[in-house]
Amino acid sequence: MKLKRSERLIDMTNYLINHPRTLITSGFFVTRYSSAKSSISEDLSIMKSTLEKQQLGTIEITNGAAGGIKYLPGIGSEEAHKVVDELTEQLADPSRKLPGGYLYMSDLLGHPSTLRAIGRMLASEYMRSDVDAVMTVETKGIPLAQAVANYLNVPFIIVRHESVITEGSTISVNYVSRSSERIQKMELSKRSLQRGMKVLIVDDYMKGGGTVHAMVDLLKEFEAELTGIAVFAEGTYKGQRAIEDFTSLLNVDTSQDGQVQIKAGNYFERNFKDIEER
Amino acid sequence: MKLKRSERLIDMTNYLINHPRTLITSGFFVTRYSSAKSSISEDLSIMKSTLEKQQLGTIEITNGAAGGIKYLPGIGSEEAHKVVDELTEQLADPSRKLPGGYLYMSDLLGHPSTLRAIGRMLASEYMRSDVDAVMTVETKGIPLAQAVANYLNVPFIIVRHESVITEGSTISVNYVSRSSERIQKMELSKRSLQRGMKVLIVDDYMKGGGTVHAMVDLLKEFEAELTGIAVFAEGTYKGQRAIEDFTSLLNVDTSQDGQVQIKAGNYFERNFKDIEER
Repeated sequence: MKLKRSERLIDMTNYLINHPRTLITSGFFVTRYSSAKSSISEDLSIMKSTLEKQQLGTIEITNGAAGGIKYLPGIGSEEAHKVVDELTEQLADPSRKLPGGYLYMSDLLGHPSTLRAIGRMLASEYMRSDVDAVMTVETKGIPLAQAVANYLNVPFIIVRHESVITEGSTISVNYVSRSSERIQKMELSKRSLQRGMKVLIVDDYMKGGGTVHAMVDLLKEFEAELTGIAVFAEGTYKGQRAIEDFTSLLNVDTSQDGQVQIKAGNYFERNFKDIEER
Repeated sequence: MKLKRSERLIDMTNYLINHPRTLITSGFFVTRYSSAKSSISEDLSIMKSTLEKQQLGTIEITNGAAGGIKYLPGIGSEEAHKVVDELTEQLADPSRKLPGGYLYMSDLLGHPSTLRAIGRMLASEYMRSDVDAVMTVETKGIPLAQAVANYLNVPFIIVRHESVITEGSTISVNYVSRSSERIQKMELSKRSLQRGMKVLIVDDYMKGGGTVHAMVDLLKEFEAELTGIAVFAEGTYKGQRAIEDFTSLLNVDTSQDGQVQIKAGNYFERNFKDIEER
């Protein structure tokens, strides 16, 4: 269908948002819009400069026979800080405090707009890394894993606590959750991961890191590789964590007298270090 | 920031995709782009006609003091059929057959591109309905519920099978799953639903409808209202289903000798009846 530039830019923006991190040949758009290659090149250069100006990410252009373009979503430091500030404020509401020093946060990880924002933030860190899949463990980690996978455009894999018939045969690991000190089991369908796949582990909350560590063990069982670990919130943990290298958006600091203090996690140190130090 | 029309259209498309079903005043864009109201009106009319031409939905314009625009995502009949045909083909793979007549489909509901497509399809049916929240039960329904909620831009609520401390106090119901004939329990955090909220129930698979029916009971306990029921796949069930009025994308027909036949569910009858009959 022949489209005008203004129409092409609208359709192209929609197409790129729905195909992040995917190589698209310029021939694809030439055919889609029955337009000259030179017009498409110009469209793409307007697109790239606008996305960068609005801090929505960038378009990577590769030349040559196997060349094409890739939309890499991103987020600006200012918007990212705004997201974390809003989350911090919402979580500071005293009515969220639950017995045992826990915080009610399921509603936040059930809001599409919040999930889009934090998914884009966490995915941005790994936009140029090799990631073939995102992995999480049921239940509360799922929405976050899906949101991150959505921006990386890779499948997400859900580790289960129990065998379910609809998953087929599984591989399982036992582990001790460092915070609860209980022995638990997690299992993953054999069909869901192939050997050599590069995996980003995502979870909603990490204290001692025992659960995340068990997922790392599970990756080893599948001969898959760990690309990184990203959590929504890290909680205070006295002692050596099972996991040292991870990204957190928030830090939930619970003192002995039950006071809870919410602040930004290590995300900004890891992602906007240059800007932060200015 | 002052932007040219081509730049405005790119940024506006991105903004609308991330704010579906949300009333946006035209003043918002006037301020955002430091542009005249007449230019923004023209932008929006190009946007509306392009989205409609590409069958990506529409823009609803309301005039007057409380007026503004709303992006309502949609899907065309041709694209919807393509999505269902591809799913049918993928599910027909004999290696998906599991003991007991089950089908392995977790991978499909873990692919962002698949979830975007089926989320857009199921959400389209309820785009103009009163929906305040999407509800599902853990675990396999979650990705689908999130995908639908993403297009409706409402929170999604996860019913649990067990109490977890991080959910706070809950309301629970017992039910008999008609297919397994076991008594089960489901519970939902008291904080997650308010009285009078209008809820769309979403699940991955429905046979007898016992699980969905239990979610309807749970809605009554919360004095919330049912807007509709949408499932990814309905399975063969001999006898009277607990739920009669629902939308299904796929129909999984299992015969007594273990043969499985996958076809389209009732989605097209409910959504493109006029087109289908032509």
